[in-house]
Amino acid sequence: MITGKNYIGNQQSAKGEVTFKTFNPQLNVENKNTFYEATSDEINNAVSLATKTFKEFSNISGLKRAEFLNAIADEILDLGDELINTYCSETGLPAGRAQGERGRTIGQLRSFATLLEKGSWVDASIDTAQPNRAPIPKPDLRKMLTALGPVVVFGASNFPLAYSTAGGDTAAAFAAGCPVLVKSHPMHAGTGELVASAIIKAAKKTGMPNGVFSNLNSSGIEVGTQLVSHAGVKAVGFTGSIRGGRALYDLASKRKEPIPVFAEMGSVNPVIMLPKSLENRANDLAKTYAGSITLGTGQFCTNPGLILGIKGDGLTQFISELAAQIVQIDPMCMLHPNIVGAFEINKEKAISQKDLTVVSDYKDAVETNFARQVVTTVSGQTFLENPTLHQEVFGPYSIVVQCEDGQQLETIIASLEGQLTGTIIADDNEETNFSGVISALQNRVGRIIFNGVPTGVEVCPSMNHGGPYPASTDSRFTAVGIHSIKRWVRPFSYQDWPNNLLPAELQNENPLGISRLVNGNQTKGAITNE
Amino acid sequence: MITGKNYIGNQQSAKGEVTFKTFNPQLNVENKNTFYEATSDEINNAVSLATKTFKEFSNISGLKRAEFLNAIADEILDLGDELINTYCSETGLPAGRAQGERGRTIGQLRSFATLLEKGSWVDASIDTAQPNRAPIPKPDLRKMLTALGPVVVFGASNFPLAYSTAGGDTAAAFAAGCPVLVKSHPMHAGTGELVASAIIKAAKKTGMPNGVFSNLNSSGIEVGTQLVSHAGVKAVGFTGSIRGGRALYDLASKRKEPIPVFAEMGSVNPVIMLPKSLENRANDLAKTYAGSITLGTGQFCTNPGLILGIKGDGLTQFISELAAQIVQIDPMCMLHPNIVGAFEINKEKAISQKDLTVVSDYKDAVETNFARQVVTTVSGQTFLENPTLHQEVFGPYSIVVQCEDGQQLETIIASLEGQLTGTIIADDNEETNFSGVISALQNRVGRIIFNGVPTGVEVCPSMNHGGPYPASTDSRFTAVGIHSIKRWVRPFSYQDWPNNLLPAELQNENPLGISRLVNGNQTKGAITNE
Repeated sequence: MITGKNYIGNQQSAKGEVTFKTFNPQLNVENKNTFYEATSDEINNAVSLATKTFKEFSNISGLKRAEFLNAIADEILDLGDELINTYCSETGLPAGRAQGERGRTIGQLRSFATLLEKGSWVDASIDTAQPNRAPIPKPDLRKMLTALGPVVVFGASNFPLAYSTAGGDTAAAFAAGCPVLVKSHPMHAGTGELVASAIIKAAKKTGMPNGVFSNLNSSGIEVGTQLVSHAGVKAVGFTGSIRGGRALYDLASKRKEPIPVFAEMGSVNPVIMLPKSLENRANDLAKTYAGSITLGTGQFCTNPGLILGIKGDGLTQFISELAAQIVQIDPMCMLHPNIVGAFEINKEKAISQKDLTVVSDYKDAVETNFARQVVTTVSGQTFLENPTLHQEVFGPYSIVVQCEDGQQLETIIASLEGQLTGTIIADDNEETNFSGVISALQNRVGRIIFNGVPTGVEVCPSMNHGGPYPASTDSRFTAVGIHSIKRWVRPFSYQDWPNNLLPAELQNENPLGISRLVNGNQTKGAITNE
Repeated sequence: MITGKNYIGNQQSAKGEVTFKTFNPQLNVENKNTFYEATSDEINNAVSLATKTFKEFSNISGLKRAEFLNAIADEILDLGDELINTYCSETGLPAGRAQGERGRTIGQLRSFATLLEKGSWVDASIDTAQPNRAPIPKPDLRKMLTALGPVVVFGASNFPLAYSTAGGDTAAAFAAGCPVLVKSHPMHAGTGELVASAIIKAAKKTGMPNGVFSNLNSSGIEVGTQLVSHAGVKAVGFTGSIRGGRALYDLASKRKEPIPVFAEMGSVNPVIMLPKSLENRANDLAKTYAGSITLGTGQFCTNPGLILGIKGDGLTQFISELAAQIVQIDPMCMLHPNIVGAFEINKEKAISQKDLTVVSDYKDAVETNFARQVVTTVSGQTFLENPTLHQEVFGPYSIVVQCEDGQQLETIIASLEGQLTGTIIADDNEETNFSGVISALQNRVGRIIFNGVPTGVEVCPSMNHGGPYPASTDSRFTAVGIHSIKRWVRPFSYQDWPNNLLPAELQNENPLGISRLVNGNQTKGAITNE
């Protein structure tokens, strides 16, 4: 049951005067629950609990933390239809999407549980002592990854489950041993509270200390600002706009003690259609891309907002067919009136640019909060000269750039800001003639796709979700997959430390049976020559 | 032969009007060579060369890059006595130290070469496709680490070889595939130029592209500022003061495209002497620590600047003996008159604090540029109340804090800023009675030492050199050891990418025979079921 209250650790709390409601964009009405924005005191209490809890939580065994993660997954499933219905009422997204995203969220939680059960993720490394080494003895050194401290996670508007309350950031932080403070996204505060209740239940059932998790409601920027500025907070995870992510990064950088911010932000996900692919299958590509551009009403961070090709009959045919195909797709609801509003403003700004042609504009009347998809086209030269055309229009929008030749294509790619993904569409091995284009694209993105679409982020160890700024604030980490745990940990070395006081991961006997780098060799063996 | 010129790629260049000389602190005279500060044009040319070179250099095989690193080591050795003599004339340090540091530098270069030869450092991960998976097919995803781009390395005043021109930052960046621009330290510009010439020779001999390395002289902050602000620079490595490191971090954070800065900065390296150890061996500890405090004239980042104990006869005896021992050590030269000057100012500031007792002050006359070691003591309460006493005094200085009890000791440790190291001195298993103290210390440091001294940073995979801010700007990385390569790389994913276009590390056949995570299992095998 949704109460509208915050969770300050295990305790529900609603001391604030500021309240807000969520909105059903399908029905164009406010939802009934009232949410209480967290007060400054509530925030301080939540951080204080997290700080006190940190020592205990980070020292709990990986197996126990795995139980906690699996219990969260169980409790989320146990929320049943209430969760799905709340999700739909707060996003306008269909139940199928809600169920799919719930499955993804559960899968993420369980994959981190498995990582903890296996235990080798800590990158244990041991160099044993050489007391007789000349000129000076070599000490015994043992290193492993350890939790950073309390982490603040910002819920994402476009993924109420998979990138929010118990999403990838939270799952990775819990796995690492970090308490989590969620700044709940105001557009789906009810979904957030339900998931938060599942986390709290799981924490109690598996004996996690009070304060390992708090859920803080907010309708403005104050709660987030206070959290990121708080001395007790040691890292931040965010998924959202460049403006929002950069503001948090700037805030964190200016602290007396700067802290890492991993923000996954905007991306136009350039797609390069090479000439032969357009000659061979312009119509098929148009159909596929009409679907990818409008998928989820264009509200995916991997939405293909920029398509590049070289002028010619193939590209002309593709544009014409894309225009024809995309208007056959029924417009859909966006997440919130504010998001529809922003889409309309950004779309208008884009299509009002000089020397740009709108090739497809869904003209029929649509319901309130529904988005009309738009495709535009410009020449390579126009695109190069106008940085406004490089900006993301969040929603079902894409621009097709008609380049003069391969050289201009390469120049344009090199001029792009950092991106989450880049896609190459090619036939008959033509990609081998475009090594400069591919190389330039690799330098601008975090993931490169061959003959596919960028939408759809497979959750697996080999996925990289992140990229050069502004795709993310730190390209050295992925936001998706088990390796995203590395965002929330630091290496820690023990020198000549008594074996019985070492964490199990580093003890001679290797009681956990994990893989360790011992004197330069990767092994699951024990250390016996001591 | 030292020319005083910059290396802009392979080309020596001296277009600037600003010149400077290095200084011999032993003889208290300027050295004879004149160095030409890099001009804005020279800097732009160097970055431009590095940017152009990046694509080629980052795609050169690990084996070829290993040859380059080994060749640098060979060429440094080949500099022979000229390097040692120049080093000594620019630092006042003895030849034995220069030789030792050269050995360490060579060792670092060769350890990265070995890492590249083994090849598994790229963390290759492969998840093969499942075309028939329902409801949607699983794509083929392959991930590995890839170079960030051109890296700027700032030479450190206190390690002209091991943390400067061809030091750990440079070796790690080359190993990663990043071109390097060194902002040479003005105090040892001659040593820097000699090492730079070795790098250039090695680059030519092993066929590395022009621009893979540049060496830029500077006497002020302008060259460094321009480098860190340059859009072509993608990461920064720095070893030095908190003030300097923070300024670079702030500069990098404010860029349109923020870039990672790894700055290893100040640390007082708290040492906790538990009661029984002081009862049992106060005199031995005093002797050991008199040596550690004055080692290298206290100019190590791991110098023990803060010693904590609990009031009692043992601690009193330790302080008295430390006072007696430390004045028996002959004062030594510091690196530069500016560093002696700063030491004197900071020392005076420290000892003028209220309720502080100077227990040992070397009073005899010393030669110019020599540092008189000082030990002081305060009560726990005084230390807690006065943050000035927490600050590093770079040089042979240490403060002994006399705590009331274990609780106050723990409170003090928890109040400290981040540190590179923390040390516990304990006898008769007394450490088991101080788990709160140890836990608090672990939360504040990057490396914890048992019954040893913090000075001496073993170069091995299990070393962590770094720590919570301000020990370093990003505690998630080490500055020493092979894993320091992770500072300069980012993960990169290929989705459904043609096998023949993949880097060798990710091809089905596993031609390099490296260890890879394939569908969740770590293996050196090939992928055959395709």
